Amino acid sequence: MLLARRVSIIGVGLIGGSLARALRKAGAVGEIVGIGRDETRLRAALDLGVVDRISTDLSTAADADIVVLAAPVGITASLLKVLKPVLGPSTIVTDVGSTKGSVIAAAESVFGKLPGNFVPGHPIAGTEQQGVEASTATLFQNRKVILTPVHETNAEATGKVRRMWELAGAQVIEMSAGHHDEVLAATSHLPHLLAYALVDCLAAMEERREIFAYAAGGFRDFTRIASSSPEMWRDIVCANQAALLPVLDGYIRDLEKLRGAIAAERADELLAVFARAKAARDRFIDQAGSAGSTPSEDA
Amino acid sequence: MLLARRVSIIGVGLIGGSLARALRKAGAVGEIVGIGRDETRLRAALDLGVVDRISTDLSTAADADIVVLAAPVGITASLLKVLKPVLGPSTIVTDVGSTKGSVIAAAESVFGKLPGNFVPGHPIAGTEQQGVEASTATLFQNRKVILTPVHETNAEATGKVRRMWELAGAQVIEMSAGHHDEVLAATSHLPHLLAYALVDCLAAMEERREIFAYAAGGFRDFTRIASSSPEMWRDIVCANQAALLPVLDGYIRDLEKLRGAIAAERADELLAVFARAKAARDRFIDQAGSAGSTPSEDA
Repeated sequence: MLLARRVSIIGVGLIGGSLARALRKAGAVGEIVGIGRDETRLRAALDLGVVDRISTDLSTAADADIVVLAAPVGITASLLKVLKPVLGPSTIVTDVGSTKGSVIAAAESVFGKLPGNFVPGHPIAGTEQQGVEASTATLFQNRKVILTPVHETNAEATGKVRRMWELAGAQVIEMSAGHHDEVLAATSHLPHLLAYALVDCLAAMEERREIFAYAAGGFRDFTRIASSSPEMWRDIVCANQAALLPVLDGYIRDLEKLRGAIAAERADELLAVFARAKAARDRFIDQAGSAGSTPSEDA
Repeated sequence: MLLARRVSIIGVGLIGGSLARALRKAGAVGEIVGIGRDETRLRAALDLGVVDRISTDLSTAADADIVVLAAPVGITASLLKVLKPVLGPSTIVTDVGSTKGSVIAAAESVFGKLPGNFVPGHPIAGTEQQGVEASTATLFQNRKVILTPVHETNAEATGKVRRMWELAGAQVIEMSAGHHDEVLAATSHLPHLLAYALVDCLAAMEERREIFAYAAGGFRDFTRIASSSPEMWRDIVCANQAALLPVLDGYIRDLEKLRGAIAAERADELLAVFARAKAARDRFIDQAGSAGSTPSEDA
């Protein structure tokens, strides 16, 4: 049975393109329409066979069964403003944004309250690469997708979005937007911030000293996420400011404590922190083991 | 031509074992003797064919042409105290410690000044795994080894240690111990500290919230180095305290600045930092491209 006659994806980049590929591979959708502002990039998606049809006119999305917002999280409100007057009453809207509180706030600012057919979502998958050229049909295979419906969200709409992601191979979980934003601030947004800050800090030293020439594989892995899109991460960090600041403050406090232990040569305190961290990390790897080892970013 | 009739390796773990394997594969040494305190672990090295002979008696090292200290950096002085009365005048001693100022200080504390035949060294290779079971003959292939001889170091000794590492497939570079310690503090010791601190910080949150369950590949890579040996990293952090503290302070300052930019929603400032970091990291990857992509830790 078809999931939908027509799915419109606004923003056919890594995430939007991979979803299109996965749904097409599953034979789950009659037609997939790629919508965006940049005709050259849309044409690339069409030429790659990722979508069936393209349009630079947002209102084209109006007659789809499902509209997926896969554009940068910062322009959600402006997209919804254009969609509002043209959307059919039964059209389901979902998004793939890395922050959920900000997306719900954007929808509320446009519609007054979150429409019943709007299902906020976030696939925890990606790579540091961007663009439709990097998209694959298997990007969401065995990955988690978090949906954050509110009390008023239409259960049928949530069920349909859930099915869409399951067809793409993902495991779907529901939680509150607040919980989502807290968890992702800790496991994704903070690490990205730390990696960007480290590379920028070292790049400033690099002017005086050859630093990067002697960096090895550990450094490469540690900083891989600093090769992610600066624009996307500016938007995420700003959008999730409220959840990110407390966890960043907690981290800076921990770092200051470690600094004190190093300065005072409290070796036992350092050992205790390092041993606790290793144990927690090894547990995480054991738990995550079944999720495969393909490099993937948690944006 | 043989590099040496006999090489004694004190501490046959990941690094010592990999060096033994590489030298044996190169057919460069008459006999490789593994020396350590733990007979069970030494026997494992012997059974794996990593060394030709084993001994728990440090003085066995006395009649080697080259003695390699591959035990934890924190016990360098106590090893040298035992070796001092038995070492032959022409025996070359080198080490593999991740910090070089502290090793030179340890040697000076035992010998009064750094002996001419002592060549401080550091192979920038490894993984988060430990033990002779993880050792491979190719661990140093295309990796960098930094030697930090002082003015008084015997040039012939330095040349021999250089040849040893080249036979193991490494690229050998000489620099001052101070420069080494500064560079490694930035590219290796600080990232390890940040990763340990992050996992420990999140593990504390985990008690209230499921955090790790929603972490993805980016987090896995970012925290891989937090699975390294806590004892080894306690020793490294303490030994390189002097070089680590200023770079840690600089990093905390940068993080505070970013915190301010997030709190005040200075999006352009965030974008500028992220974009600079991405550009620097992408340059680093381009430069390092030829060094292969095998996961490797920069301890």
